[in-house]
Amino acid sequence: MLPEYASPSLSGEKFTVTYQVAGDEKEARARALEICYEQTVEFPADLTPKNINDSNVGQIVDFRPLTSSAYLATISYPRECAGEELVQLLNVIFGNTSIKPGVRVERIDLHPQMLAGYRGPRFGRQGLRDLLHVEKRPLLCTALKPMGYPTEALAALAYQFALGGIDIIKDDHGLANQSFSPFKERVQACAEAVRAANEKTGYHSIYMPNISAPHDQLLEHALTAKKLGAGGLMVAPGLIGFDSMRSLADNDELALPVMSHPALMGSFTVSPQNGMSHFALYGQINRLAGADITVFPSWGGRFSFSREECSAIVDGSKEAMGEIASIFPAPGGGMTLERIPEMLEVYGRELIFLIGGGLHRHSSDTAENSRYFRNLVEKM
Amino acid sequence: MLPEYASPSLSGEKFTVTYQVAGDEKEARARALEICYEQTVEFPADLTPKNINDSNVGQIVDFRPLTSSAYLATISYPRECAGEELVQLLNVIFGNTSIKPGVRVERIDLHPQMLAGYRGPRFGRQGLRDLLHVEKRPLLCTALKPMGYPTEALAALAYQFALGGIDIIKDDHGLANQSFSPFKERVQACAEAVRAANEKTGYHSIYMPNISAPHDQLLEHALTAKKLGAGGLMVAPGLIGFDSMRSLADNDELALPVMSHPALMGSFTVSPQNGMSHFALYGQINRLAGADITVFPSWGGRFSFSREECSAIVDGSKEAMGEIASIFPAPGGGMTLERIPEMLEVYGRELIFLIGGGLHRHSSDTAENSRYFRNLVEKM
Repeated sequence: MLPEYASPSLSGEKFTVTYQVAGDEKEARARALEICYEQTVEFPADLTPKNINDSNVGQIVDFRPLTSSAYLATISYPRECAGEELVQLLNVIFGNTSIKPGVRVERIDLHPQMLAGYRGPRFGRQGLRDLLHVEKRPLLCTALKPMGYPTEALAALAYQFALGGIDIIKDDHGLANQSFSPFKERVQACAEAVRAANEKTGYHSIYMPNISAPHDQLLEHALTAKKLGAGGLMVAPGLIGFDSMRSLADNDELALPVMSHPALMGSFTVSPQNGMSHFALYGQINRLAGADITVFPSWGGRFSFSREECSAIVDGSKEAMGEIASIFPAPGGGMTLERIPEMLEVYGRELIFLIGGGLHRHSSDTAENSRYFRNLVEKM
Repeated sequence: MLPEYASPSLSGEKFTVTYQVAGDEKEARARALEICYEQTVEFPADLTPKNINDSNVGQIVDFRPLTSSAYLATISYPRECAGEELVQLLNVIFGNTSIKPGVRVERIDLHPQMLAGYRGPRFGRQGLRDLLHVEKRPLLCTALKPMGYPTEALAALAYQFALGGIDIIKDDHGLANQSFSPFKERVQACAEAVRAANEKTGYHSIYMPNISAPHDQLLEHALTAKKLGAGGLMVAPGLIGFDSMRSLADNDELALPVMSHPALMGSFTVSPQNGMSHFALYGQINRLAGADITVFPSWGGRFSFSREECSAIVDGSKEAMGEIASIFPAPGGGMTLERIPEMLEVYGRELIFLIGGGLHRHSSDTAENSRYFRNLVEKM
């Protein structure tokens, strides 16, 4: 055993993570105990000094069967293990254990003192409604694409979308800083197109460029976008890290709504006994990291999320989390105008309809298609 | 179909990604074709303007059976789709497709013009050997832990490890900026401890603190560490994003070796038909993102990587990639001194033995244990 040193005093405040752990009762208990060590001291139990064993190692505070081959284990951790940083919080929640098959993060319950350390979404549902001047109906969103279109073509689309009354016109997540349409040129042209259309319509549409930039250019891209008239920022935390999204959401000079896109995040949810639950990843963690909008592929589109998984995301987007606001679920990924009624039924009115390619199926007139989309939703 | 605009001219230079795609031949072909669109235009084929369809959409350039229920599909993409940024390159490789079950990135082959845009590891195998003054034997590494230890205790361990001749003394990945041992205080004390031991021994041990900090403090932490005498930087790209690691590796003011830790990266490899291969993730992508050392859990420890998967990481750490240097595999995750001969046999001498808790089993004298570890390896 390593020598014991006087331990810094702990607050006694804990947070818990509930894991789905595969196995029969004995196996699952053994795995849960491994998690307690792996996620904290990462040290053999018999070599860990007693005072650290007693105070820092995770503790199983609840353990119950979930299915015939999996258990739910709730493990509590001292809040000091996570420091006061999102990076380290995610590390304690799932860092090394992510490498082990048969463990899935189901939900996270932070101590109120920890929640108070996170601003979370700056706008949240109500803030976004106020910004967009939309009192009650679901919000409308579409994407500028295809990648390969020159700036002129993307700006023309942005103008038509805004003219037809789409609330949020975002870059496709594949638009970065390519030669087809360089970042700054595109943001300038598309923000201006949306502004011009708003002037004509009296609407309050916003343009959200993709800010998933290299580390050293991230803030610069975001500030440039703001200066050029962007009304929000789209970010893929799977590509740039959750804390990078958090840094943009927390930035008072930016003070723009943030949309979280799921690119490169899919491996967390692709296997039902591993990774993270839709509730935790798309709901809780996105909110903690400052997203105002959580984009995900809806059931019935090109992707494979089930109706239940999508409902879990909605739950996670509004689950009580201290002062952290509820956010908008934005189901997309192959949605069509025809599916609007069915989606409303499941998601309710607190949602953003995200329709990309499907919007162009109605006719060859983009502004007309956008108007049609808006009328459909306004009638609901 | 959307209107056609004059297309910016493309270089014709392509990169390819080889995916494992689940299904029978017909299903797998259909999936591969979906990937071609999903990863580029993300637009329905029949609505995509012809010139973009012809030039920007991915193309299946090879398709062959892998098992009775999976195919290998190699898809080529115009290099312009990835722009000149790692973030966007990863996005094209696997962004949205990561969300779809039954697709795994097996390997990446970049065009030489693209590879030339990445510095990759600043040191690589030979650079690290030169820095550490170790000509031929495998390198030795251990970790400061357990989390909860005060700075004084961690620095005492660092001193003992260095005294015994461990080449690389790194923070446990769970040491961040907690009250137990705040970042700056710890780095100062541990760097000083290693320096003092080197003075006594004449060795060239280095201390590598964990730099997986919040986005807005990342560079500051790294520069502070350098100023305080750290000899390298440990980063978990799963926590902070691959491009954040790249930004540290590329920074000429830092010019320190970078160790990539697998925390929160496990979901990519936890399921054999999804995510990314060990070869691509721990080998190719880590190198592209500037890691000099790729840490992963060895077979036979607390984790579940197989011997073959570990060998694939070694392959990925040295696979020809233009001017991008080979890097050191650092298998860890529950290694013991007893396993050294067996590990040498599989990994060869171009490796870093990473032994954490197991190092303390030999006796209660940490310096003596370190000497024993070093002697074992020097004798091989």
